[in-house]
Amino acid sequence: MAKNLQEMRQRVCLANQSLPQHGLVKFTWGNVSEVCRDLGMIVIKPSGVDYDQLTPENMVVTDLDGNVLEGDLNPSSDLPTHVQLYKAWPEVGGIVHTHSTEAVGWAQAGRDIPFYGTTHADYFYGPIPCARSLTAEEVEQAYEKETGAVIIEEFARRKLDPMSVPGIVVRNHGPFSWGKTPEQAVYHSVVLEEVAKMDRFTEEINPKVESAPNYIMEKHYSRKHGPNAYYGQKGQVH
Amino acid sequence: MAKNLQEMRQRVCLANQSLPQHGLVKFTWGNVSEVCRDLGMIVIKPSGVDYDQLTPENMVVTDLDGNVLEGDLNPSSDLPTHVQLYKAWPEVGGIVHTHSTEAVGWAQAGRDIPFYGTTHADYFYGPIPCARSLTAEEVEQAYEKETGAVIIEEFARRKLDPMSVPGIVVRNHGPFSWGKTPEQAVYHSVVLEEVAKMDRFTEEINPKVESAPNYIMEKHYSRKHGPNAYYGQKGQVH
Amino acid sequence: MAKNLQEMRQRVCLANQSLPQHGLVKFTWGNVSEVCRDLGMIVIKPSGVDYDQLTPENMVVTDLDGNVLEGDLNPSSDLPTHVQLYKAWPEVGGIVHTHSTEAVGWAQAGRDIPFYGTTHADYFYGPIPCARSLTAEEVEQAYEKETGAVIIEEFARRKLDPMSVPGIVVRNHGPFSWGKTPEQAVYHSVVLEEVAKMDRFTEEINPKVESAPNYIMEKHYSRKHGPNAYYGQKGQVH
Amino acid sequence: MAKNLQEMRQRVCLANQSLPQHGLVKFTWGNVSEVCRDLGMIVIKPSGVDYDQLTPENMVVTDLDGNVLEGDLNPSSDLPTHVQLYKAWPEVGGIVHTHSTEAVGWAQAGRDIPFYGTTHADYFYGPIPCARSLTAEEVEQAYEKETGAVIIEEFARRKLDPMSVPGIVVRNHGPFSWGKTPEQAVYHSVVLEEVAKMDRFTEEINPKVESAPNYIMEKHYSRKHGPNAYYGQKGQVH
Repeated sequence: MAKNLQEMRQRVCLANQSLPQHGLVKFTWGNVSEVCRDLGMIVIKPSGVDYDQLTPENMVVTDLDGNVLEGDLNPSSDLPTHVQLYKAWPEVGGIVHTHSTEAVGWAQAGRDIPFYGTTHADYFYGPIPCARSLTAEEVEQAYEKETGAVIIEEFARRKLDPMSVPGIVVRNHGPFSWGKTPEQAVYHSVVLEEVAKMDRFTEEINPKVESAPNYIMEKHYSRKHGPNAYYGQKGQVH
Repeated sequence: MAKNLQEMRQRVCLANQSLPQHGLVKFTWGNVSEVCRDLGMIVIKPSGVDYDQLTPENMVVTDLDGNVLEGDLNPSSDLPTHVQLYKAWPEVGGIVHTHSTEAVGWAQAGRDIPFYGTTHADYFYGPIPCARSLTAEEVEQAYEKETGAVIIEEFARRKLDPMSVPGIVVRNHGPFSWGKTPEQAVYHSVVLEEVAKMDRFTEEINPKVESAPNYIMEKHYSRKHGPNAYYGQKGQVH
Repeated sequence: MAKNLQEMRQRVCLANQSLPQHGLVKFTWGNVSEVCRDLGMIVIKPSGVDYDQLTPENMVVTDLDGNVLEGDLNPSSDLPTHVQLYKAWPEVGGIVHTHSTEAVGWAQAGRDIPFYGTTHADYFYGPIPCARSLTAEEVEQAYEKETGAVIIEEFARRKLDPMSVPGIVVRNHGPFSWGKTPEQAVYHSVVLEEVAKMDRFTEEINPKVESAPNYIMEKHYSRKHGPNAYYGQKGQVH
Repeated sequence: MAKNLQEMRQRVCLANQSLPQHGLVKFTWGNVSEVCRDLGMIVIKPSGVDYDQLTPENMVVTDLDGNVLEGDLNPSSDLPTHVQLYKAWPEVGGIVHTHSTEAVGWAQAGRDIPFYGTTHADYFYGPIPCARSLTAEEVEQAYEKETGAVIIEEFARRKLDPMSVPGIVVRNHGPFSWGKTPEQAVYHSVVLEEVAKMDRFTEEINPKVESAPNYIMEKHYSRKHGPNAYYGQKGQVH
């Protein structure tokens, strides 16, 4: 168990440090966590600490309710959002939140990121949803926890599978993404940001553009996912 | 006192050198200063000198009216603007002026940078104002000094607290930002530039977008500022 | 022959590694191949392998129908598209496929990239076509092979010479480019991406812009191509 | 004289190599030259050679009519344009041509780059003109020479001083800039590209924006130029 936790600390540290390498964050504006339900533990970035100051040792370890078990530093203030998503979605193993610029553009505009092409379909099965803003009451009560609740509500309302649509933008706020692992969650953050940019360009070039055909989504998503996937090498996780 | 001044020189030198690292300037198009009211001194970048030629020793030291006390080089030509702001706003300890591209876009467009989301609210309490252009008379008389006067006038007219709205764009010109320290003033320059970009994207994606709810601004601003702040670690300055 | 194949492996490896250096790909989202019709061989990137993991040795070698001859790894899933183009166009020696952002913008918008200036005319004789989306039947039957067929069909329908218009965007998907060699195919990918960006800017600045005059296209294309070319040094391939 | 020529070779080599460092060129898409009227010589980049292959020794030396005096390589194909400008404008000492993306956007759009703010006014006294496209006859006769003629014609028609407006975009083509030295010509290329970007943003943010007041142009231009300049340090060239 000690070994597993140490590996979690290393993975979460590396995943956090990859955020600036992918151009997704400025200063300390993003965080990655990993959950291990067997250990009953979440490992997450400490709040407000620069990425180049992160080490496996200064990651914060909490229980599945977000109570700090190990670490002298405060956990990311977004921890309660992560906790809600881990509780609701048992297949999710890692979560990322950033303020990446293109994704924030859609979040602030209050629009779903449309399905216009195969780059999108390779990783997201359908439009990337934009969740509603929190109400004044939700903000007042437990802001970060309610952010998680709003995301879960949006997926339930639209009957979406979080493993097929591994990300969302929250209105007036920014993107969250997830995956089986923290590495995959970061990968999905990069895809979400890139698709957000491609779609902005697309609408600029053709303001009357419509969604791409559904059968292209089916094909591209199933090239990389599910029993008949044939992209990449055997045993690779996409 | 000699020690304090030497530390000011070092801080101001480093803060100026951070401008190109943050992508905020080309050539010599930006300057940072720090004031120490106890010493009665301002330290500022020399005019027209490349950032990689800056040393603590070639920073220019002036009194609180901008008269050069130490240094063989001319101070930044924007010094009189800095002087006006330091005189008007006793809590300001550092000031930055750049021609960063996205912020200049709003300045040239003559528009406030709207409040559309949480990235903005984390650092700016309300829209980032666009001050009016100077009149022909103001330009003729004392251009840089009057630029400061116009900024102060704009804050007074709107009844804004410069510590809650730590930046502005001046019409047809560009951004100014400030903070308790030169480091914080640079931080606010980066935020201003990033929010300017996010907001350009937002309006492109949704031309009918409206401001985000005020209660989100209240919440996000107070997460990082004031007696109940809980972002980051104890004792950190945001 | 062994020597030639080894050189092909090296060229294809280097050409693939140049894609991220030119900013054309994220993760593993692009592939380059080379054909040698004398050897009866195609060399192509392995599927889903990071560019910094590529070596001449792990390139995949296939016959001219795309059957793997050498290599333990799966070839790029886009191989059947490459095969079709090599079969149809005997002068093509190298092919590139990416999801480069600006080109995808036009592909998703479903529009040809217009001829607006000399940067375009230096390498593409006329607009860069946008091919139609595949039908549901084509996607179902043999997606990647049919993608090649649709590209060939588009060139036939418009009576275009693939050596004069060395690239295309496929609707809802992204760009393909080619050349006499893999290096030249990569070069054309860079041009296609850059022209896509220039043209987006152009229409933003002047929504009523029209195509540039044909005689400018004639002149610029012939400066670099054909018997009277005078750009560059003698013996250079453009 | 040999010493002067060697220094010219070095300056021109360095100035050419600075183009990719400033992000103004891809591949070999730009060239810088210097003239010395006393020596009766022009030094210019060889055509189609990569910037990292440039040395002072492989620069091409020509007479004032563009006849090669020294060098085994062909000069830049744009040399006749440079020759025309040097002949028409005796104060010009260095010239740059690139296909930089933002400037090409305005060239392809066929529009002057408007005067919207102080960044522009610091270096360009008034809008940056867009010259007309060449006619079919001009293209046929002597394309590059006529490009120079069209630029000169545009300045004459508008009664502009090339030392106060040190650049232009040629319709359907791209930017040319110049200065007293090749270094200054490169500097003006960077400014032109940056102002082109700022102005694109400005019109996006406010489609009804109008030119900035003339008195701001007067003030900012004269801060850096002429007998009462006070920006920078004594003896600096801007």
